[in-house]
Order: sequence, then structure tokens, then C-alpha cells
Amino acid sequence: APPQQPVNDPMWGYFTTIAGQDGEIDAEELQRCLTQTGISGTYTPFSLETCRIMIAMLDRDMTGKLGFNEFKELFAALSGWKQNFMMFDQDRSGTVEPHEMSQAISAMGYMISPQALNAIIKRYSKAGRIYFDDYVACAVKLRALTESFRRRDQMQQGAVNFQYDDFILCTMSV
Amino acid sequence: APPQQPVNDPMWGYFTTIAGQDGEIDAEELQRCLTQTGISGTYTPFSLETCRIMIAMLDRDMTGKLGFNEFKELFAALSGWKQNFMMFDQDRSGTVEPHEMSQAISAMGYMISPQALNAIIKRYSKAGRIYFDDYVACAVKLRALTESFRRRDQMQQGAVNFQYDDFILCTMSV
Repeated sequence: APPQQPVNDPMWGYFTTIAGQDGEIDAEELQRCLTQTGISGTYTPFSLETCRIMIAMLDRDMTGKLGFNEFKELFAALSGWKQNFMMFDQDRSGTVEPHEMSQAISAMGYMISPQALNAIIKRYSKAGRIYFDDYVACAVKLRALTESFRRRDQMQQGAVNFQYDDFILCTMSV
Repeated sequence: APPQQPVNDPMWGYFTTIAGQDGEIDAEELQRCLTQTGISGTYTPFSLETCRIMIAMLDRDMTGKLGFNEFKELFAALSGWKQNFMMFDQDRSGTVEPHEMSQAISAMGYMISPQALNAIIKRYSKAGRIYFDDYVACAVKLRALTESFRRRDQMQQGAVNFQYDDFILCTMSV
């Protein structure tokens, strides 16, 4: 069957413009698109690495590219993160401070110790502040790793016995 | 005591030029330096994300920057990876193919299943090929995650029981 063309969907035209000939969106195309929308709130390009992480999260058919429905799902997730981010970026600088990032992660519902929070925030900071694209990379990874962990923690004991190979598979692909 | 200035070390002048006023090298300075050396073998900038991962690996005093000894250690590690990479990049394209990446990871001594190898290689590929900076990011993460795992696997059973918080700490900071 030919792919469905949702002609009445207002995002379809936008999607096809970005996707180009192959009808799917890769990391470079997503980066251009997100930089143009100005979603990061700064004048710097949106991180290509974050685009790759986001595509890896949604790319269920493992092509490294996004189809139309995956693209819409990504935009919905990004809107949620942007709202969350702006709640903490009170001065509209396009960045949040470490203690605000810490509150934001807690607001997402994760139960993480101060020690782990500090390590995470240090990893995603530039000169002591966190930009939106790094914030998104952090949120996507935290979600993927937590989901991987919970799937294996079937008795909900808060602990999982990992074999080395499974540990590497879980952690290297995000 | 004032910091030691190893005046007889031929890399000291190079280091101070890159490090600038604060006497340490941050991710942006490292990116400029590695792009200028042409170590990637292509004309594109060396990945900033990879620079951040490398600094996180070596930055024992947790400042987000490298001092002189850390910088020398990084150059030694990079030379090793570059040699390893070039062994597999036979046509000097600046990229390796997925099956060559798979051989390279095995050559580093890791015992990883084909399934996990495939997931890793997909994650670090661009249009089906692996560039040097992504290769380095992959090698650094694999080393850091394997070291974290082994430190916890004291009986060398190939398995570790992770609490959620420790799992997140280990995996989110690389």
C-alpha cells in the first residue's frame, strides 16, 4: 500500500518541505528545521547531537529517520519540554541555572539523589548554565534509561541485575 | 604552591596558546584545537559533543576543563584511537564502514554480542558510515561504562545488581 498522505493535516506540508525527496527527516534536516523555528531561544544552531538522540528515541523502524507520525510525536514532546523549560527560565535568557535544572528534573517526576543530580547537571552545563538543546538531550536520555530500567525491574524493587552485554546495549544506544 | 610550569616540555607552549587566560582548556577551546590539527581527516569541525565527553572522562577535579597533564593524557589517548581508526579506514576517506567499526571495537578487547554491536554502530553512524569524532565518542563511552561496570562487579561474575539511582549516576554522566 502507498504511504498515507494525511492531506488535511496542517503539518503535512511543513513535513514534506523539510523531509525533501526521501520523504523522511534525518538528523541534519531536523537540526535545520529546529534552528529555523528558533525553539532554542538563542541565535546558535540547535545541537545536532540532540537531534540524533531524539531521532533514536522515536525511530521505531530503526532507519535513523523520522516519518510523519514520528515527527508529529517529536513536536508534541518538544512543546512539553519547552513549556517546562520556560517555567524555570524566568528571565528569558534561553538558559536555566543548575538549581533550576534540578527542580525541573524533579518536576518531571524522577526520584534522583542530590549526588546523581549534580553529576547530571555538570554533564549538561556550559559555563555553569544549561541551554534548551542540552536540556532536551538530558530529558530524552533520562526517559530512555528510566524506561529501560523499569522494563527489567518487573517486581518494582528499584534494583536490576544487569549482565554486561545487556548493560552496554541499554546504555550505549541512547 | 604555584602550578608547576614544565618549561622543558615541548607541548607546554602549545597548551598555553590554546588554554588562554584561565590556563585550562574547555570544550570549545578543545574543539578549535582539534579542528585545526585536522585530526578528523575531514574538513568539518571536530564534534563539540565529543570534546565534552572527552573532558568529562579526564577531568578528575571536576572543573569541566583540562589542565596540562590531563591535556597530554588526552592527546596520547587520541593518538591511539587515530591509529586504530586508520587501520580500518583503508581508503583514507576519514570514515569507516559498520563492519569495520565492529572489528575495531573487538580489536579494543571488548566482548560484545552482535546485537549490541549493531545498536552501538547505528547510534554512531551518519548515513551508514562512522566519522572519527563519533568513533572517539563511542570509544570513550564504552571505556567509561565498562570501567563503571567492572568496579561494581567485584567477583567478576559478568553481572551487577544496580539500584536505580546508581544506574542513572553511572549512565547519565558519560
